[in-house]
This record gives sequence, C-alpha cells and structure tokens, in this order.
Amino acid sequence: MDEFDLIHRITPKETHQRSLVMGIGDDASVYQPHSHCEEVVCVDTMVEHVHFRFDFSTPFEVGFKALAVNISDIAAMGGTPKYYLVSIAIPPHGDETIVTALYEGMKALADTYHMDLIGGDTVAIRSDFVITVTVIGEVPKGKACYRHSAQAGDIVFVTGELGSSAAGLSLLMNEVESAKAVDSDFFLERHKMPQPHIAAGYICSSFPRVTLNDVSDGLASELNEIAEASRVTIEIEADKLPKHPDLPMLRKDWLEWVLFGGEDFVLTGTIPEADWESFEIQCKKEDIQITRIGQVKGDQAASVILKDNDQQTVLMKKGYNHFKK
Amino acid sequence: MDEFDLIHRITPKETHQRSLVMGIGDDASVYQPHSHCEEVVCVDTMVEHVHFRFDFSTPFEVGFKALAVNISDIAAMGGTPKYYLVSIAIPPHGDETIVTALYEGMKALADTYHMDLIGGDTVAIRSDFVITVTVIGEVPKGKACYRHSAQAGDIVFVTGELGSSAAGLSLLMNEVESAKAVDSDFFLERHKMPQPHIAAGYICSSFPRVTLNDVSDGLASELNEIAEASRVTIEIEADKLPKHPDLPMLRKDWLEWVLFGGEDFVLTGTIPEADWESFEIQCKKEDIQITRIGQVKGDQAASVILKDNDQQTVLMKKGYNHFKK
Repeated sequence: MDEFDLIHRITPKETHQRSLVMGIGDDASVYQPHSHCEEVVCVDTMVEHVHFRFDFSTPFEVGFKALAVNISDIAAMGGTPKYYLVSIAIPPHGDETIVTALYEGMKALADTYHMDLIGGDTVAIRSDFVITVTVIGEVPKGKACYRHSAQAGDIVFVTGELGSSAAGLSLLMNEVESAKAVDSDFFLERHKMPQPHIAAGYICSSFPRVTLNDVSDGLASELNEIAEASRVTIEIEADKLPKHPDLPMLRKDWLEWVLFGGEDFVLTGTIPEADWESFEIQCKKEDIQITRIGQVKGDQAASVILKDNDQQTVLMKKGYNHFKK
Repeated sequence: MDEFDLIHRITPKETHQRSLVMGIGDDASVYQPHSHCEEVVCVDTMVEHVHFRFDFSTPFEVGFKALAVNISDIAAMGGTPKYYLVSIAIPPHGDETIVTALYEGMKALADTYHMDLIGGDTVAIRSDFVITVTVIGEVPKGKACYRHSAQAGDIVFVTGELGSSAAGLSLLMNEVESAKAVDSDFFLERHKMPQPHIAAGYICSSFPRVTLNDVSDGLASELNEIAEASRVTIEIEADKLPKHPDLPMLRKDWLEWVLFGGEDFVLTGTIPEADWESFEIQCKKEDIQITRIGQVKGDQAASVILKDNDQQTVLMKKGYNHFKK
C-alpha cells in the first residue's frame, strides 16, 4: 500500500460546504466560518480490540461508528456538523480493502449531513488499528446547549431509546439470557451503526435554556455530569425510561443496560417546564421520539436519584471508565 | 490510572484565547471565530516505535514534537495557531508520569503561541502509544499561502537550515560516520524538539503571491508538491542549500540529508522576485534566516531540478512514504 496513492483514493471528488476554501491537498485545510455562528469542535478515537473488533463489525460499520460518535458530540451541543478530519494508524494486517471500506463507512454518514472530509493523516502502527476523527460543526452564536444551566423544576428528557446498544453488544458476545423471538438485527445495528441525533439537538438549540449530553457513557453518567455542572439534583423514574419492548426478553436485569449501558448516542437533558409543550410539538413534527423521564430538584446536592416504585436509589456514574484497574 | 482523574489533571487551569466560549468540560468545545479571518485546520499522528521511541526521546520531547509538527502545518499556510485537541491511546506500559509529561511537552510549546487545549480523548490500547493532535489556526481572509500559485521567475527560498533533523536521528541510531568535534546536542535537539516557523509563515502571508510548504517529508518532496500544484519547474542550486557547518563532518554524502532527510520543519516556497527585497528586510527584522536557493522556470513539466556544478539532476519526491513495501 502506498501512502500517496491511498490519500489520492480517499480524497473527496466533490465537496458540499460552500464555506470551504481549500480542502485536502495542502498542508492544512482552510474554510470561512459563518459570521453569525460559533465553531464547535470535538475529537474521538476508536482502537481495535478496545472499541471494536473486525469479527463483530465490518470495516464499513467501524468507519460509520467512528464518525457517528463524534457527530453525536456535536449534536449534544445543539450544533450542525460541517467538516471532519481522519487520522488512521494502519497495522500490517490492514490491507487496502479494509482501509477503503473504513473511509466509505464514514463517507456514507458524512453525506447525510453534507459534511466534507478536509484533512487527515495515514500512518503505520505495529499491532492494532487506531482511528481518530475530529469533527467541526457550528451553532448559531450563543445558542450552544451546555450542561450547566439546569434549574429546579426543569423537565428531564431523553430522545430515542436506551439500552439497545448494550443489548446489541451482549448479543455479539453471546452473553444474553435468551435471544429467542427477538429482533436481534435491530439491537446489533444500534450497537454497530448508531445514528447521531442531530435533528433533536438542533431543536434544543432553539430554546433559551436547555442542558444536553449525548448518551455515550450511559444515562447515569450523563445525568451526573449535568447535575454536577448545574449543581442540582436530578430525579428520574425507572418506569418512564424508554426502551425497546424486546429488551426485557434479552435480560431480566435490563435496567442495568438502560442506566449504564452507554453508546446509545441518543440525547438526554433538561428543559424548562414552560418550553416542554412547544419542544414536544417540534419534535413530533420531525418524527423525533422524546420522553419525559423525570424532573430537576432544587437542592445543590449534584446527584441523580432513581425512583423505582417506592425505592429511591442514588445513581453513581458507573460509566465505562477506560483505565480503571 | 483513572480516565476522569487524568482528564481533570490535564485540563488547563487557565485559557489564553479570548474567542474561546467553552473549553474542555462539555461534549465539544465552542469558540467564536474572528470575522476577518479564515480557519486553518490540520491533524497529525505520531506512533510509538514508528515515529518516536522513548529510549531516544523523553515523553516531554515527544509531546513537544507531536504539537510542533501540527503547528508547522499551520505555519506552512501562513496561519497563526490558536487551539489544539489531543487524542491519546495509552498502552499498559504507559503510566501517569509518562502521560503527564507528554501533555507538559505540548503545553510548553503551546504557551509560546498562547494556544489553548480545547479537547481530546484518552483511550486504552494493547501495545504502542498513539498521539493524534488536531490544530486549529487562523489566517486573514484570502491570505493563506497555498502551493499552486508559483510562476516563472519567482525566487525559491527556504527558512532556516536543512538536514539537521536527519543528522540528529542518525546520531541517535549511531549511524553517523564520525561525531567527533561536532555539536551533537544541536542536531539532537533539531530532531527531538523542532521549532515550527510560525513567524516566517506570518510574514509570507502578508505578500500577495507566496507558495509555501513545511519541510516534513524532505525538501525534494515539498518542492515537487509545489511544482506539481503550480505546474512549473523549480530549479535549485546545491551549493546554495543552507546547512549547519558541522553537517559534512557527520556524513560525506550530507546532501542526502539536506534533500531527502525531512522533519526539519523549516519552510520552503516561492515568492515573486519583485517582493524578495521587502521579504528579506522583514525577515531580518524578526531575526529569521532566509536563503534564496533557486528560481522557478516557465515550462509546465512540474519537476524539480538540482543544479550541482555542471550537473543537472531531476529530483524525485523520495520523501518518507510510510507504506511503501
């Protein structure tokens, strides 16, 4: 495999963003930001045998997900993705077919959002694939959705369903209790090719005070981050948490997946009660599922409480923490 | 090592860029671009045992270089660096001391340019460290220095000296012919902690038609890129190429290093003859060494010619090409 040939092959033949001045092909890319917008930037890395395995996912699916997790971070700010850069470390077992498919998986998702690939690096590595994606998006000035503005009385919501990605991973690992009569493909796809909730995030950014996180590390972890940043207590109700109806068939203790599974890449956050109805209407118009799962309480305990029948449990982060030994 | 603790420790305690709206601590960072500027973005990855070895460089030096190579790409566009994001894959042998020193090395260089660390990811990997740095800079609207505008008659120049980094690497590998009476530390530092030529790039951007590349893959490779993009022939003269006076003591065939060594991270490019004198004066004011090394010729052969006494040689790219097998 030749580096220059590879770069030539993955260089986009056309671009979408009119603000792009110079794409791939010079030392760096150049674009003209929109004057009424702020720039939103994030980066995420996926490592072979840590975040993905080629016996579970195709290279196309891995590429798709590597970009999706980043777009999801832009969604969690209420932003719109515009550009992405891809750095890839390729081990000896990584042939041209794999690498090309990785880029095709990214491109398939990028095209949905008219995003342009504007840079990257291709390097060699001794053992495992490492894919690092940087995404640049924009949000109208002053409209980004942070974590720190939740107030007592706000409604806690989630877009889409929870626990499906964790169920998909368990199916791949043969760890489910029973997969009979279950739409396995649904859960597998949720795990392998998660869809970022850009449209929902965009609606959130039109309201004056929404907190927002994407569910990458699990609902409990995300809500704890909002509770900490806003210095509030968040109460959620177990029987309100949205899940696929088949989920309980896969695991008796399905609530674990819903609360701590992560990688659903739906959005969770808070919105003032006065805005709830309008928020619901706008989401319905766009065919976006939102669910009211709880409420923000006034004390400054910065904690998350799960109400399950008569029981109240303090939910700790318990998200996936890569280096915990 | 705990991921959340680590993130807490490497999160900057203060920021420099006033345009930064939200730094590390949410799903993505947010900043307000300057309205009279274009954004300049690049990403580069360094892999342990491919691009660096901890028996050759300290973690501090590795961090410094990982950022330097990216800042150098911004310099090669005539831009000013503002922000950086760091994604790091940490193998089992990577303890807290190493990781912290990597970030300190980056911070040392970043502080020189008042750059802010605004994002990143820390993940686990089975074998080798992988460090991916994204840098975002800016350039006044329409002032970026591309590769495609060289014209017949333009002067070919280089900032700083060539071949020093390759000499430093050879010293580390014990491959030099003789290191006696040579300032080894000079060459080692050029290899381990290269200084990006931001000030020189900035001056270039003030002229209407400058082509510019940073010398990462070797002078021959960079000039070929300019020749190809501009469809011109570039002629350079061997006896004009700037080098450290000790270089020939390290290797009889030192011209190899000067032409193909790479990683010098100086700038090379072309400028109209009419602007040369003013360019020289401005560089002198800033104590920047520039050397006139050749001239652009009119035919569209898109090649690079080396004139050495009576001989003329066509210089191929021959840059370091990671996957060539």
